[in-house]
Amino acid sequence: MTVNIPVLKEVTEANSMLADVLRTRFAEQGVFVLDLIASPGAGKTTLLERTIEGLDGSVRLGVIEGDPHTSIDAERMSAAGVPVVEVNTGGGCHLEARMIQSALGQLGADDIDALVIENVGNLICPTGWDLGEDAKVVIVSLPEGDDKPLKYPMGFLAADAAVINKTDLEPYSPAEVETMRENALSVNPDLEIFEVSCMTGDGVDAWLDWIRGRVAEKRARQG
Amino acid sequence: MTVNIPVLKEVTEANSMLADVLRTRFAEQGVFVLDLIASPGAGKTTLLERTIEGLDGSVRLGVIEGDPHTSIDAERMSAAGVPVVEVNTGGGCHLEARMIQSALGQLGADDIDALVIENVGNLICPTGWDLGEDAKVVIVSLPEGDDKPLKYPMGFLAADAAVINKTDLEPYSPAEVETMRENALSVNPDLEIFEVSCMTGDGVDAWLDWIRGRVAEKRARQG
Repeated sequence: MTVNIPVLKEVTEANSMLADVLRTRFAEQGVFVLDLIASPGAGKTTLLERTIEGLDGSVRLGVIEGDPHTSIDAERMSAAGVPVVEVNTGGGCHLEARMIQSALGQLGADDIDALVIENVGNLICPTGWDLGEDAKVVIVSLPEGDDKPLKYPMGFLAADAAVINKTDLEPYSPAEVETMRENALSVNPDLEIFEVSCMTGDGVDAWLDWIRGRVAEKRARQG
Repeated sequence: MTVNIPVLKEVTEANSMLADVLRTRFAEQGVFVLDLIASPGAGKTTLLERTIEGLDGSVRLGVIEGDPHTSIDAERMSAAGVPVVEVNTGGGCHLEARMIQSALGQLGADDIDALVIENVGNLICPTGWDLGEDAKVVIVSLPEGDDKPLKYPMGFLAADAAVINKTDLEPYSPAEVETMRENALSVNPDLEIFEVSCMTGDGVDAWLDWIRGRVAEKRARQG
């Protein structure tokens, strides 16, 4: 947002303070927290379905679904068999720490190993809001075009990992996976990058390994 | 935005007042103004390239490019041979009327028939900001998934027309053009819908006819 910066700064500072409170709580519980950021239709929810399927109960997941209007995604998570709470932002363009705090009260996060927050579909606004997460992951789908990391760098700068999704469409799209990877790394050389097709399952295993590793690491640091 | 509503309301009211000033100016000049809204990678810039190519000088276009960071799109417009001004929002998530006013000063909009404003790639935030346009057009690409009009209805509600792009990917994607169309019309039954592939050129002619019609209509009302 470019409007009323002083007020917005106050709001984001209050948000960061609350995010730190949440982060302390997650550390005490040993819960690994992931904030998924992407444009609408990049495949956040489908990746989550594949993740739940692939982990097959070996990591106990909870999900917070941020959506501007419908409950479509929360219903898909519920059907996939994980505890889920929806945050309906009523048209709002991102999640904030206070929404996560409210949602946690309804989720019962005490017996999960990892919390995945699916942010509102928006590659810009969610990137600046700390939700108390351990890692942000940005998902970008190949048909969006391989220049997207350059054009919307904020999410790639803020993220620990990037998932390049819908790689199965490479033969039919002018975009190239390799160029997308190079562009993402040119914005943030520290990114872990996963090339994935949620349709064919290609590349999902490496992503699952990364999740398992981060969950184990968090649990080891608990207390 | 869900934060600081009173301040934001003041800002949007000031925006609407300025948008009305711009609208009066465009009416006097007989310039048709289009606000293009879409997620990153839906194909706004490529549709514009096809539009410039297809109109082939029969409609004199000017373009304002809204981008959060790079000049990639403005350079593509310049290469396509139309006058273009870039508004770099510095990470901001939408365009506002004051940005259009500034950009017009640099564009020299006196000898154009139509002004196309390519908004920042974001399906949420740009929908609520009046830029003095005659019509908003929302572009959604098929691989984003045919549920997107339901999940992100604001753009479809605010728009006069919707372009369903990348229809050539239908055989390779779980999404269906017909379902996308039905979902868009269920949100806004008054939408004109164009099914387009900017890759193959399919459907572009109907879109060009619509532009020509709206430009002629605006010119006829001039003065």
